[in-house]
Amino acid sequence: MFLTPKEQLAIIKKGTDKIVDEPELLKKLEHSFQEQKPLTIKLGLDPSAPDIHLGHAVVLRKIKQLQDLGHHAVIVIGDFTGRIGDPTGKSKGRVALSDELVKENAKTYCEQIFKVLDEEKMTVRFNSEWLAKLTFEEVIQLAATTSVARILEREDFQKRYHHQIPIGLHEFFYPLMQAYDSVELKADIELGGTDQTFNILMGRTLQRHRGLEKQIAIFMPLLEGLDGIEKMSKSLGNYIGVHEAPEVMFKKIMELPDSLIIKYFELATDEHPLQVQAVQERLQNGENPRDIKLQLAEIVTALYHGHAATMDAKSYFEAAFQKKMIPANIPVLLLEIDKERIEDIIPQLISIQFIQSKSDFIRLIKQNGVSLNGEKIAVDDLSQVLMNEDVLQIGKKRFLKLNK
Amino acid sequence: MFLTPKEQLAIIKKGTDKIVDEPELLKKLEHSFQEQKPLTIKLGLDPSAPDIHLGHAVVLRKIKQLQDLGHHAVIVIGDFTGRIGDPTGKSKGRVALSDELVKENAKTYCEQIFKVLDEEKMTVRFNSEWLAKLTFEEVIQLAATTSVARILEREDFQKRYHHQIPIGLHEFFYPLMQAYDSVELKADIELGGTDQTFNILMGRTLQRHRGLEKQIAIFMPLLEGLDGIEKMSKSLGNYIGVHEAPEVMFKKIMELPDSLIIKYFELATDEHPLQVQAVQERLQNGENPRDIKLQLAEIVTALYHGHAATMDAKSYFEAAFQKKMIPANIPVLLLEIDKERIEDIIPQLISIQFIQSKSDFIRLIKQNGVSLNGEKIAVDDLSQVLMNEDVLQIGKKRFLKLNK
Repeated sequence: MFLTPKEQLAIIKKGTDKIVDEPELLKKLEHSFQEQKPLTIKLGLDPSAPDIHLGHAVVLRKIKQLQDLGHHAVIVIGDFTGRIGDPTGKSKGRVALSDELVKENAKTYCEQIFKVLDEEKMTVRFNSEWLAKLTFEEVIQLAATTSVARILEREDFQKRYHHQIPIGLHEFFYPLMQAYDSVELKADIELGGTDQTFNILMGRTLQRHRGLEKQIAIFMPLLEGLDGIEKMSKSLGNYIGVHEAPEVMFKKIMELPDSLIIKYFELATDEHPLQVQAVQERLQNGENPRDIKLQLAEIVTALYHGHAATMDAKSYFEAAFQKKMIPANIPVLLLEIDKERIEDIIPQLISIQFIQSKSDFIRLIKQNGVSLNGEKIAVDDLSQVLMNEDVLQIGKKRFLKLNK
Repeated sequence: MFLTPKEQLAIIKKGTDKIVDEPELLKKLEHSFQEQKPLTIKLGLDPSAPDIHLGHAVVLRKIKQLQDLGHHAVIVIGDFTGRIGDPTGKSKGRVALSDELVKENAKTYCEQIFKVLDEEKMTVRFNSEWLAKLTFEEVIQLAATTSVARILEREDFQKRYHHQIPIGLHEFFYPLMQAYDSVELKADIELGGTDQTFNILMGRTLQRHRGLEKQIAIFMPLLEGLDGIEKMSKSLGNYIGVHEAPEVMFKKIMELPDSLIIKYFELATDEHPLQVQAVQERLQNGENPRDIKLQLAEIVTALYHGHAATMDAKSYFEAAFQKKMIPANIPVLLLEIDKERIEDIIPQLISIQFIQSKSDFIRLIKQNGVSLNGEKIAVDDLSQVLMNEDVLQIGKKRFLKLNK
């Protein structure tokens, strides 16, 4: 730990939505600095979650920054919750998982997490370790630390209660379980998205109730996806997965709206706040956002794929999208939903008379007369998945931009 | 089991407030009759409850009637709840009790219960036996059988929620624990006062959820006390304790308002419904209610003290209150609260000039000039506890009725 508490605080604050509360955090940092004793940073993860994307990675990146400052991360896999699932069977998302499946999921999950976090400064724990041992008497004591009204304040519960959508009594225990994890780990800091506000603050209450120092709650904002509007999510298709190939990641970042450049610097990179400020000034001074986005794409891709692969991805991007002689104003075809491959869109291409027939199209391909993003395609390439803004070209002069 | 299911039903129905539901009960009785297999009758008791009075005994009497029909009673002592108490410490009524104290209380309690129930057809169980063993996972499964909205429907919870009086989350478990007891015991019938409606119906839900036959809920009305208005309760002072001396019990029943005679026949005796109907007809035909009340006092007192002691109590009552020459219209003194003994009311007697001074009063007593209810008193009797409508007499002509 080389940075002073105040220097650490500046880095920790970058991009956060809210810290509860900052003076307490500074005290913890000061104490940790004086004693040269790392703080315990907690992050709870649901083992049923899907592949990690940059939206999920926002909290992970913040934890990485805390690790770089010398602190220790504890990842809590919520296997106890996962094992129970939803006993009513009503929620499809909460199917009870077998022990093996939970462990299996956790392994896959950790492999992705290790793409962000420093394995050396990190412990993975399963909360069944302590939760499964609680007796009914201890559960009652846990329940007694909160009131029905307080839990009903949680936004989603409140909405469901007022709209008369049943809330199973067991659901009231999920926040308490998460809070109990903080007690068990003596967490100094817990991170989460703003949707975790209630649960993380419950951890503070419970720690105080058990005579422990209250954890600091750090809430990270939700990251918008490629459309610049909706929260990044796999189901909306506006995501950038941390497991995606460097070329795909690079290109997707280049597709971001300019308005998100600073937010991505804050939430998707580990750049120092002063550097982010410098980028902001360059934008304000009228520098081309495209150049700055190239820099962002390089930084983000390098975080997940290293420098060499990133340089290759950059070259590929520039070759395919920048240097080829594709005119500025070309017709655009909006692809029908679910048409993902070149072969899928042939009927659409015929209907707008871009080609005459499938056999004619194949003849042109065989004659080396068809390109995608400036690269000639072969018949085998018909099964290639299209990306947004791919450009299809026949001969020298006929271009068509394919938008999803 | 000699009585037919329909004959049994007529006896069971006597005095009940509500049965959920009657056709199901008849089926259970028929099945039990065919197989000659007793039904399991459950009653849950809170070990922190005080001495038993006739109000508490209403459910016990109904269980005694069921025992007399051949069925088996299971008394569940809620020691698990008692042991936990109120972990918030807010409710004084729910202090956590030690195991020894719970067992001790239960013993005292059972001694009183045995004054009503048939020990041969009865089992006493402690619910910690099964509840203490539940794991967190099982508790979650239990909680999942109900919804927050459903529990908030319980009248007391609803009131508190709407008046923003905090409800500890643990309190939501008390009905579930009681319901779980019914599952564990495979109860056929559960009895309780109307204030237990929610909890007992929860037992039906949980049994059905666990694939068991639903228990029948029999709700008994609350019994009014001596004042004829308020529910019988120790704190209101309008109670008749099952442990009270036969003379006291007899006299208290004689003090009941006439309007309660039939209700007491229904709820405080084991008389057959046809006999109760006969009493009702005698009243309607203009028979003196006092004579019928004498019969009621005899029946009730005999239930707790046997025939011989009851006859003595009746003689004492008649001697003290009926045959002595106490005039009809004598002055009444309303005793101050907490003045229970003769010696306590001396200042009041002086202030209304019934006596001149304490020394004068003692002098009169020593001269055999003072009577209570027609019996001379000695100086030692000054510490005697006064009862409502006791009559104090000095010499031959000065009477004073003492009302509490």
